[in-house]
Amino acid sequence: MSTVRRIGVLTGGGDAPGLNAVIRAVVRSCRIAHGVSVIGISDGFIGLVEMKARELALADVSGLLVRGGTMLGTSNRGNPFRYAFRRPDGVEELVDASAMVKKNFEKLGLDALVVIGGDGSLSIAERFWRELGIPVVGVPKTIDNDLFATEYTFGFATARETATWALDRLHSTAESHHRVMLLEVMGRDSGWIALHAGLAGGGDVVLIPEIPFTFEALIAKFRARERRGRPFSVVVVAEGAAPVGGNQVFAGEDAVTGWKRLGGISYQIAREIEARGGYEIRATVLGHIQRGGTPVPTDRILATRFGVEAARLAVAGEFGRMVALHNDEIVSVPICEAIGRVKRVDPSCQLVQAARSVGIVFGDEDIDAVDLSEG
Amino acid sequence: MSTVRRIGVLTGGGDAPGLNAVIRAVVRSCRIAHGVSVIGISDGFIGLVEMKARELALADVSGLLVRGGTMLGTSNRGNPFRYAFRRPDGVEELVDASAMVKKNFEKLGLDALVVIGGDGSLSIAERFWRELGIPVVGVPKTIDNDLFATEYTFGFATARETATWALDRLHSTAESHHRVMLLEVMGRDSGWIALHAGLAGGGDVVLIPEIPFTFEALIAKFRARERRGRPFSVVVVAEGAAPVGGNQVFAGEDAVTGWKRLGGISYQIAREIEARGGYEIRATVLGHIQRGGTPVPTDRILATRFGVEAARLAVAGEFGRMVALHNDEIVSVPICEAIGRVKRVDPSCQLVQAARSVGIVFGDEDIDAVDLSEG
Amino acid sequence: MSTVRRIGVLTGGGDAPGLNAVIRAVVRSCRIAHGVSVIGISDGFIGLVEMKARELALADVSGLLVRGGTMLGTSNRGNPFRYAFRRPDGVEELVDASAMVKKNFEKLGLDALVVIGGDGSLSIAERFWRELGIPVVGVPKTIDNDLFATEYTFGFATARETATWALDRLHSTAESHHRVMLLEVMGRDSGWIALHAGLAGGGDVVLIPEIPFTFEALIAKFRARERRGRPFSVVVVAEGAAPVGGNQVFAGEDAVTGWKRLGGISYQIAREIEARGGYEIRATVLGHIQRGGTPVPTDRILATRFGVEAARLAVAGEFGRMVALHNDEIVSVPICEAIGRVKRVDPSCQLVQAARSVGIVFGDEDIDAVDLSEG
Amino acid sequence: MSTVRRIGVLTGGGDAPGLNAVIRAVVRSCRIAHGVSVIGISDGFIGLVEMKARELALADVSGLLVRGGTMLGTSNRGNPFRYAFRRPDGVEELVDASAMVKKNFEKLGLDALVVIGGDGSLSIAERFWRELGIPVVGVPKTIDNDLFATEYTFGFATARETATWALDRLHSTAESHHRVMLLEVMGRDSGWIALHAGLAGGGDVVLIPEIPFTFEALIAKFRARERRGRPFSVVVVAEGAAPVGGNQVFAGEDAVTGWKRLGGISYQIAREIEARGGYEIRATVLGHIQRGGTPVPTDRILATRFGVEAARLAVAGEFGRMVALHNDEIVSVPICEAIGRVKRVDPSCQLVQAARSVGIVFGDEDIDAVDLSEG
Repeated sequence: MSTVRRIGVLTGGGDAPGLNAVIRAVVRSCRIAHGVSVIGISDGFIGLVEMKARELALADVSGLLVRGGTMLGTSNRGNPFRYAFRRPDGVEELVDASAMVKKNFEKLGLDALVVIGGDGSLSIAERFWRELGIPVVGVPKTIDNDLFATEYTFGFATARETATWALDRLHSTAESHHRVMLLEVMGRDSGWIALHAGLAGGGDVVLIPEIPFTFEALIAKFRARERRGRPFSVVVVAEGAAPVGGNQVFAGEDAVTGWKRLGGISYQIAREIEARGGYEIRATVLGHIQRGGTPVPTDRILATRFGVEAARLAVAGEFGRMVALHNDEIVSVPICEAIGRVKRVDPSCQLVQAARSVGIVFGDEDIDAVDLSEG
Repeated sequence: MSTVRRIGVLTGGGDAPGLNAVIRAVVRSCRIAHGVSVIGISDGFIGLVEMKARELALADVSGLLVRGGTMLGTSNRGNPFRYAFRRPDGVEELVDASAMVKKNFEKLGLDALVVIGGDGSLSIAERFWRELGIPVVGVPKTIDNDLFATEYTFGFATARETATWALDRLHSTAESHHRVMLLEVMGRDSGWIALHAGLAGGGDVVLIPEIPFTFEALIAKFRARERRGRPFSVVVVAEGAAPVGGNQVFAGEDAVTGWKRLGGISYQIAREIEARGGYEIRATVLGHIQRGGTPVPTDRILATRFGVEAARLAVAGEFGRMVALHNDEIVSVPICEAIGRVKRVDPSCQLVQAARSVGIVFGDEDIDAVDLSEG
Repeated sequence: MSTVRRIGVLTGGGDAPGLNAVIRAVVRSCRIAHGVSVIGISDGFIGLVEMKARELALADVSGLLVRGGTMLGTSNRGNPFRYAFRRPDGVEELVDASAMVKKNFEKLGLDALVVIGGDGSLSIAERFWRELGIPVVGVPKTIDNDLFATEYTFGFATARETATWALDRLHSTAESHHRVMLLEVMGRDSGWIALHAGLAGGGDVVLIPEIPFTFEALIAKFRARERRGRPFSVVVVAEGAAPVGGNQVFAGEDAVTGWKRLGGISYQIAREIEARGGYEIRATVLGHIQRGGTPVPTDRILATRFGVEAARLAVAGEFGRMVALHNDEIVSVPICEAIGRVKRVDPSCQLVQAARSVGIVFGDEDIDAVDLSEG
Repeated sequence: MSTVRRIGVLTGGGDAPGLNAVIRAVVRSCRIAHGVSVIGISDGFIGLVEMKARELALADVSGLLVRGGTMLGTSNRGNPFRYAFRRPDGVEELVDASAMVKKNFEKLGLDALVVIGGDGSLSIAERFWRELGIPVVGVPKTIDNDLFATEYTFGFATARETATWALDRLHSTAESHHRVMLLEVMGRDSGWIALHAGLAGGGDVVLIPEIPFTFEALIAKFRARERRGRPFSVVVVAEGAAPVGGNQVFAGEDAVTGWKRLGGISYQIAREIEARGGYEIRATVLGHIQRGGTPVPTDRILATRFGVEAARLAVAGEFGRMVALHNDEIVSVPICEAIGRVKRVDPSCQLVQAARSVGIVFGDEDIDAVDLSEG
């Protein structure tokens, strides 16, 4: 424990607002509270294979709190167990570079490694610890907030604010033009951003992967609003949302794959609603805008607390663990408990109930009931 | 002149931040400065046909300065000369409802009509004045800033800020992930938003309708940045941008029409770059988000000044004219001078030159030169 | 229970972002989920004395989610047990108007009353229930987040964001000009806003009521930063912060009362640091800016959930209770448990420890230690 | 002209959003468009005396567009003609260090010097050119927008947006609480920020140095609003505003100097209104918050254009000149034409008239008229 003198830190996977704030907190608390030095590893796990690393002093993390992205970079070729090695003849070959990781970890004189990443990166970190004996500490990261074993992760609050801000803007146009507007937000496996943004942004309909919808229910809602003198609606769509019966309802169309890849599910949903309901619809896919920008205070604070605790765990020699938020307190859990599972929205949870109470429709409603409601 | 006692006001065409600020300024200056009452007409010109109107007191416009959209509503069935009349049997028929407009204008006891709208609405207003003798005053409105006869219109500054804000967010992700990111902004006929946002948001490439691009030039730019250790780029695309030779280069693909309609040109451009350059690209189409939101101060001030001058023109009996901004002063011009023409970006203007000087590429560059540049 | 048909709602005490969101959620969930009508009472409890009330339909709360302030108004003459009655001769007299409240409550045909307010308003609400038998439900509100019995209240997150945003702006100037900048934020009795904003905004020093400070520790911190090549510091001051020994250290100065009243404690602190340390200091008192503005998503969601639960309690006949947030779930507690106590920052809590770990100084540090630190 | 190979750049005087954007544009256009290298000089003119300089590559200005402050630092001991030299015995002595500046300019191998600064810094730059023969190019900078010879300067639009944003927040509280709220903004000699923010933020009263006010007119306005059922008002105060007769009306009070120094004029105004009108008033002094933050697009674009043109002038050998904005075009003027004069608000200009038309009161109104107005 007292032997920890030098800690490595890296960021893996997709971008999330707050990554820099974690790095800053690790560096500051290591140096100020523990007198330990920190080595920043570039481009995720790849930096450990290719030996891209440098010491991080306090000055290096100055001004970092407000910056989106990660000063260390990240990588999509992230798995050192299946490292895309480029041979001299230019051909890429997948090789197990874990022995190289182990060797470089020692060469850098590291006593611990802080891995900031999502499910994929944490799974690799866990193998580092279990298979290679590299002393790791994990920090959970996901825009979608669907990581198990922590109530919230940094990045989510900023993404939610970006989505809400977009909804605020769409509202005025929807109202002025008497239109149905769709906003597609992130959430391939879970509807957290859509649910929160829908509540915060006054959405009329929220479509999430956890609650399959019917077009009949959507159109019934639009019609009910029209009868109440509100001939416009705003729909929040999680990218993983799907109608009852699944996405194969769109399957006859050749263009689907292309859209799915470049556009989003909301274009398909828009077209279907237009065809069935005679509406003119506009869809916006927020995309990577949700991953960027200055983190909001919630994320800056959570990221800072995660970084402080990760440094403490590393210095204390509590390896194989991940920091987490439970009841507004920072705790730690074994990494293996957190990975391989998705935290989904429970359709009967308080938040969904509250949303229904204020008139938000999820598309699974009894159509006659919707039809009669005032919402 | 002294006979002007009652002024009507309506908003036509697409949404733009600042519409409410114009309405507020018309109402406030009419009542406070001129002692004249104002009648708000709902849903654009349709409100004149269907007689939807009500008096606007000071209290009605309280708090309006910060709100996006238009409190009066607007309409897409906007032309009373070709009014979509719904017959009792449900069939729609296009009829000339201009006589009805004239009759209702008199029934409402109006002495003048302020029309806030874009090229289409102003053209109708001009016919009102010329053909029907309805005393109109125009206020120019276009997000795209491509209206002739005024240097700027309200709404543009807010749209530009929204686009810049999106670029700021995309930058961190592009940099962290070593990616090419595309942002598609409004501008079917002109590249003002793309050009301004590209300058303000530090774009690497700006594609506008006025300057046809080649994919070779784009890819040369990306490669040049890579060599300089910047393996990421941010591209701003106006929705009307097109490669040299026009959009028919995409014509072989069946899906084009659908994309063009629901998604945007940037998806096509992204796919083409991926195919030619081996890049993994993410495209975001901002869409109607650019039309909404609280107007920025520039737009609130311009809209207020436009509203004040429109009221003054109406009270002074200077009809058939439109307010405009020339050299930071509010002036007025005959409506007929403003309509039917598009103000385009001059490819040799100072702003484009400044953009090139700081390394922004428009896609028309000599590829070898780009290749050698540092940008 | 089934007899609840008509619910009154009022807002008391100071402004907080999210008040309108609670009102909206009460109205929407009453009408949509419970089929119950809602009467909005104007200007706090005074509206019950002076009978200012009107029914709130869905249309009345449309667009309310994004608006700061309270559509119902509030009052500083808020206590009906000591109502400032203005006699015909113009003299004000304090009278007990509670019988009038009871009478008007019945006259309005109300079956329950939702009171949204802080400690003062909730105390009155509790007396209504206990002494007058008026069936009340409470919704806690405080910018400062120092209300007992709930983990968070709406308004706090927005105030925190405003304060953080101000810190972000001060940072660049402090750094460019090599200056000490003070930012005074709300918190007469507790340091929650200062602590959170200090963490989120990268403050160097945070002064809160719960931790008395010494000027020696502050100056030692500034000096330590100078030695590290950081000749600037940003200090966050809660308005209730005080040096060891209390505010009487300033007592010799006549001007104190005036400053305290119109300016803030930070002007005194600034002057003291200037005198002792030879620094040129700039202080900004954020003041009521923290109470205004569009609520951030966190507050919109919490306010909505509070409103939904308050409506449910009222309809279910669970009176004398207040909604609260425990472990991210909405619960209810007896109002009497919440009032008359202040939730203070525990100086040994995780958040303060995390702040110290990243180098934030609270002014109670051992000066030699500060002097040696790197922060 | 073709001999210009190396250009120095420095920033002088107070902070303004956009300084970094100018630096970035100078560096980028010098390197990309002209193939010229740039030397950044630290801490204003002091860096030339004390030889603090380093080359700026493209990578050094990456990400700079969005950052407030100046990466080069600035200094309050800025005048090399009266340089505060610290003798070995610790005593400071004012000496003429201009010869040292000249020597260091040559030592650094500079062919031109770009000075970004306000009236003070530009005056020094002008003496450099006239007295020392140092080839300078000026870039005008002032938050207050009161620099002569250019229509706008960067920083002003951001300060205006910050002030407007604060007004938006104060409005909801003023309205909910029926209060008079004062917001003090920058502008010691001119009222540009106050006038623009008052128009954009819907202020009821705007007090600027150019139009002396009477307390009677203010109170008449408040009373008129009360009679119209608007028992609240928002007042924007430029820091240099003064009542008719000047600030000596406050002179009897000992505390004035202290307030003036630490607080602001608005505290005095608030106290006077309270005393005379029986109002309870809240004042907020925005202070240095207006100098910080990410520049808004308007400022980023203007700063970029200024930087590009400054580089062009330097390379073309057009010295002794300053870049300026005329009719939305970038031009250049002799520095000597720009300095030593203040651009004030003309009380009869269009903007003031427009403000009066929508009901804004400047405190010079005929009281009876105000009293009768609806505003």
